[in-house]
Amino acid sequence: MRNVILDCDPGHDDAISIIIAASSVSDLNILGITTVAGNVEVEKNTINTLKICELLELDIPVVQGARRPLVKASEIAPEIHGETGMDGPELPEPQIEVTEGHAVDFIIEQVMNSSEQVTLVPTGPLTNIAMALIKEPRIIENIDEIVLMGGGTFGNWTPAAEFNIFVDAEAAKVVYDSSVPVTMFGLDVTHQVIATEDIIERVGKIDNKIAVFVKELLIFFGETYKNHFGFNGGPIHDACTTMYLLKPELFKTEYLNVTVETKGEYSYGMTVIDTLSVTGREPNTNVAFGVDTEAFWTLFEEILKSFDGGQADE
Amino acid sequence: MRNVILDCDPGHDDAISIIIAASSVSDLNILGITTVAGNVEVEKNTINTLKICELLELDIPVVQGARRPLVKASEIAPEIHGETGMDGPELPEPQIEVTEGHAVDFIIEQVMNSSEQVTLVPTGPLTNIAMALIKEPRIIENIDEIVLMGGGTFGNWTPAAEFNIFVDAEAAKVVYDSSVPVTMFGLDVTHQVIATEDIIERVGKIDNKIAVFVKELLIFFGETYKNHFGFNGGPIHDACTTMYLLKPELFKTEYLNVTVETKGEYSYGMTVIDTLSVTGREPNTNVAFGVDTEAFWTLFEEILKSFDGGQADE
Amino acid sequence: MRNVILDCDPGHDDAISIIIAASSVSDLNILGITTVAGNVEVEKNTINTLKICELLELDIPVVQGARRPLVKASEIAPEIHGETGMDGPELPEPQIEVTEGHAVDFIIEQVMNSSEQVTLVPTGPLTNIAMALIKEPRIIENIDEIVLMGGGTFGNWTPAAEFNIFVDAEAAKVVYDSSVPVTMFGLDVTHQVIATEDIIERVGKIDNKIAVFVKELLIFFGETYKNHFGFNGGPIHDACTTMYLLKPELFKTEYLNVTVETKGEYSYGMTVIDTLSVTGREPNTNVAFGVDTEAFWTLFEEILKSFDGGQADE
Amino acid sequence: MRNVILDCDPGHDDAISIIIAASSVSDLNILGITTVAGNVEVEKNTINTLKICELLELDIPVVQGARRPLVKASEIAPEIHGETGMDGPELPEPQIEVTEGHAVDFIIEQVMNSSEQVTLVPTGPLTNIAMALIKEPRIIENIDEIVLMGGGTFGNWTPAAEFNIFVDAEAAKVVYDSSVPVTMFGLDVTHQVIATEDIIERVGKIDNKIAVFVKELLIFFGETYKNHFGFNGGPIHDACTTMYLLKPELFKTEYLNVTVETKGEYSYGMTVIDTLSVTGREPNTNVAFGVDTEAFWTLFEEILKSFDGGQADE
Repeated sequence: MRNVILDCDPGHDDAISIIIAASSVSDLNILGITTVAGNVEVEKNTINTLKICELLELDIPVVQGARRPLVKASEIAPEIHGETGMDGPELPEPQIEVTEGHAVDFIIEQVMNSSEQVTLVPTGPLTNIAMALIKEPRIIENIDEIVLMGGGTFGNWTPAAEFNIFVDAEAAKVVYDSSVPVTMFGLDVTHQVIATEDIIERVGKIDNKIAVFVKELLIFFGETYKNHFGFNGGPIHDACTTMYLLKPELFKTEYLNVTVETKGEYSYGMTVIDTLSVTGREPNTNVAFGVDTEAFWTLFEEILKSFDGGQADE
Repeated sequence: MRNVILDCDPGHDDAISIIIAASSVSDLNILGITTVAGNVEVEKNTINTLKICELLELDIPVVQGARRPLVKASEIAPEIHGETGMDGPELPEPQIEVTEGHAVDFIIEQVMNSSEQVTLVPTGPLTNIAMALIKEPRIIENIDEIVLMGGGTFGNWTPAAEFNIFVDAEAAKVVYDSSVPVTMFGLDVTHQVIATEDIIERVGKIDNKIAVFVKELLIFFGETYKNHFGFNGGPIHDACTTMYLLKPELFKTEYLNVTVETKGEYSYGMTVIDTLSVTGREPNTNVAFGVDTEAFWTLFEEILKSFDGGQADE
Repeated sequence: MRNVILDCDPGHDDAISIIIAASSVSDLNILGITTVAGNVEVEKNTINTLKICELLELDIPVVQGARRPLVKASEIAPEIHGETGMDGPELPEPQIEVTEGHAVDFIIEQVMNSSEQVTLVPTGPLTNIAMALIKEPRIIENIDEIVLMGGGTFGNWTPAAEFNIFVDAEAAKVVYDSSVPVTMFGLDVTHQVIATEDIIERVGKIDNKIAVFVKELLIFFGETYKNHFGFNGGPIHDACTTMYLLKPELFKTEYLNVTVETKGEYSYGMTVIDTLSVTGREPNTNVAFGVDTEAFWTLFEEILKSFDGGQADE
Repeated sequence: MRNVILDCDPGHDDAISIIIAASSVSDLNILGITTVAGNVEVEKNTINTLKICELLELDIPVVQGARRPLVKASEIAPEIHGETGMDGPELPEPQIEVTEGHAVDFIIEQVMNSSEQVTLVPTGPLTNIAMALIKEPRIIENIDEIVLMGGGTFGNWTPAAEFNIFVDAEAAKVVYDSSVPVTMFGLDVTHQVIATEDIIERVGKIDNKIAVFVKELLIFFGETYKNHFGFNGGPIHDACTTMYLLKPELFKTEYLNVTVETKGEYSYGMTVIDTLSVTGREPNTNVAFGVDTEAFWTLFEEILKSFDGGQADE
């Protein structure tokens, strides 16, 4: 069993990523979920996380993290995720409570104290992860991999930068420069897993409360992606990370050098991927470019169906 | 008939671009060819241009231009084009001579004095074009379009920057910011017209000296692209510009905002293309993304065959 | 009594700054001393701090902090401060021990739990202070002032940047952008308090172990400043901060806007001081430009003499 | 006799600089005056230059130059120099005419064709000089020195940048990187030659039309400097260049490395002067830091008095 910490800002696709990790199809050992300012303010992301955990009857620590990026001023994206950061489904106010402490310290303690290596799975801005690496550089030795959603060879927040990396490019630079192996799910691959109406229909046929929740997420997210980007559905970006942990063979990756632009006038927050190996810089990142889309959605259905009985049912 | 000035640094693919423009299939009125430092030093590029003109029996002004970029230190690419800048074919020393004056002034004079609008066709670094725009901003009104090879959503000299733009990103910025309509053939499209062995074979079946010359160019260029980039042939980048002038319907373009990164640490020389229209900046560039490859090569053969008789034959 | 936390990287002039704060002439309430990577590695800076505290019989928490800057790679200055970071005097290995925990958390806890406002006094790179501000932005309300050594209208590590700011310009940007009032002792003023031979002679006449220690610091530091910068003594930069806390009227300051350059090619780490008020940006910093040098050294002597009896005497 | 080309944007202090060069006290051989966009649009600067030449009965070529900076958008300073660029004195519309051609070509031709070396004296943005260096790099060998007004260790347009350099930092970079020896009069020294009321009074006692013109320039310029910067008079920045050519011993200079920041967020256009020699970059510039103020104004009076008889008198 692989030890993972999910670091996120739910977020429609973050929520789906958590669901995948928590399903009985998965064999991940989730040490905890940490939250970060990203899609909306960190407090909202924390409440959303608690709601999801309650819905999933998932009894693990939820620890709040960074309220702001390392250096840059804050930036949020309510136009994509709604005012609550997870608009669409209506979940009750959570009864379970946030765990005391700061995400940065939770990550450091879990990694330092784990007898086996830990995998970090950030699906929001990389502020918490970077701060943990800065505050306690020795965690590097006990992290086997950072599996993240972010970046790509093109952007969605600017022409060059994807939202997660743009929000805290300095943090991203710390992560990519850290020598920890990174597996990266950027827009190149996440734009291949768009929850079109056809997919929503398939999800709609699954009759349990988790699948209903996911359907509502996909409907709202699909609408904003239609309005904002002209897409025919919402790409469930963050879900790629946990799908990869369940079944890596779904994805096609290349091992390349990636660094982050923090100086540019028009390219701040770009993940600079040395696709043609022209820089002479050593590869440091497993970059996902392709996905077996049909197998992805089939597994996705299977995961959602797994909630029909068992722990997540009432 | 469209008035054009070809501004280039031949260069294997520049040579092919000139041949296309000069063929009897084309109805372009070539006012002159100007040269610029790029693939190799400007003097070598000028000699190569004279050789090509002599081979083509093309009696037009050849005017030498900028020896260096606007601001940046010079950078050349002999590893791609060989020491002469056009290694491979052996052409005799040219008898025709370069026209006195500087490319910048030639461009300004031709544009200012032409009763009809002029199209500029740069296939090297944009130094000459930028200097003409700086020295005499009034030329803007009599340029109908700048049809250039450069940039793309990815790079070949750095992960973010294509060679022509990287060599003089400040000049490129001047061009894109100038308000003159730009049609841009970047790597997205030029990497679709690779002269593979199959293409070289097709060219090899055409029996005239121009086709022989082109075949030799493609063989050398293919070798360096194989060694340097692992490609299965050389992309005849620059040829897209003149092919477009002959037959625009070969290409699929989108009208988008493009600006140039001149500040970045890792992205200097990137053409920042607002593909998803997220910047709110007004479109200023017709960006070519697609090409009907088979129609392209068919027309290419037709052009080369046109030299069988007529002006270019001995 | 003013609550202060000294955040430092001793460092010859840091050591002197601590001595000033700890003297009976001072009425500062030192909540603790935190250390940061700067002049040399953080572990060495911590040992040096413990040695100083032992010499001073100062019983306060010493807490180790950041091992590296926020974003940039580490950079140290043994050519100025020697291999140990405090070469020159020989002090015994310290018997007192470092306090558990991380400087960032110590700062946050002290500030959050103090019934009165706290003054932070950083004399090294601003990594700890920035991390505290990022990790717990609410500390802002209970910090009355950050009194720092760093920056200036010119640099000593590059033409534009002073060492402390250069080492972690991103951290400095966080501090200056934080809305906490800053009082800044940059090179403009610290280069006015050079410990020339004359000053060393005056110190040499004071007969207690602290003065002897200070004399040895000044001799070593003077030598490196002579060799490296051609100065006629070492400027006791950091001491300005605590001297100011003891006697603010020694210094002439102007209230101006200061921000930090983190993007420049040649000016990374510059404190951009709006001396002529041309930017329209609101003042945020009390910038020290002048000092009553004679009064400064007279008070300095008085401080050192105060160790003749009392706690610091043998 | 030293051959000089004055390249300027008059401009109150440019006007004074021309007067100094043209006086009988001077033994400069002025090959011509070229104009550049700077304080105001180039056309206005040209008209002002013609007016000054007519007043001085100076029969030399006046050639108009760059209308815009190399890369950056245009920026002018009518708040300092008034709408005409030389508000204050009223001069008649000039009868003499501008010389055909472009300043860039005039500079190239004069330098290339001169049997002796030429000194360039730019007192505006460096666009013309940079373009000449780019267009014809061989002029470098026949320029003995570029004596310019610009830059300094601090700025007046931004905290880091002086106006002339800020307007076209890329051009400045080309000049400083060119290997031509530069002597630089930046704000460090030009702010030492402020035409206070006392100076204006001394000028007012000189009874010829040139002195009257200068007095009116100083009155207007002093007013804007009072209002805009709180100075007690206008610094006659540009005049330092020609005063230096007449009497170099007035000034104290240091030979240092200078380069130009073109990337910074807050420091674009800064002349980065390696005062403490910490960069290891080779000296390339004679930087003026001091001036014998009294000797300066005494010579200034002498120059103005020299117009009492002779060519400039009525």
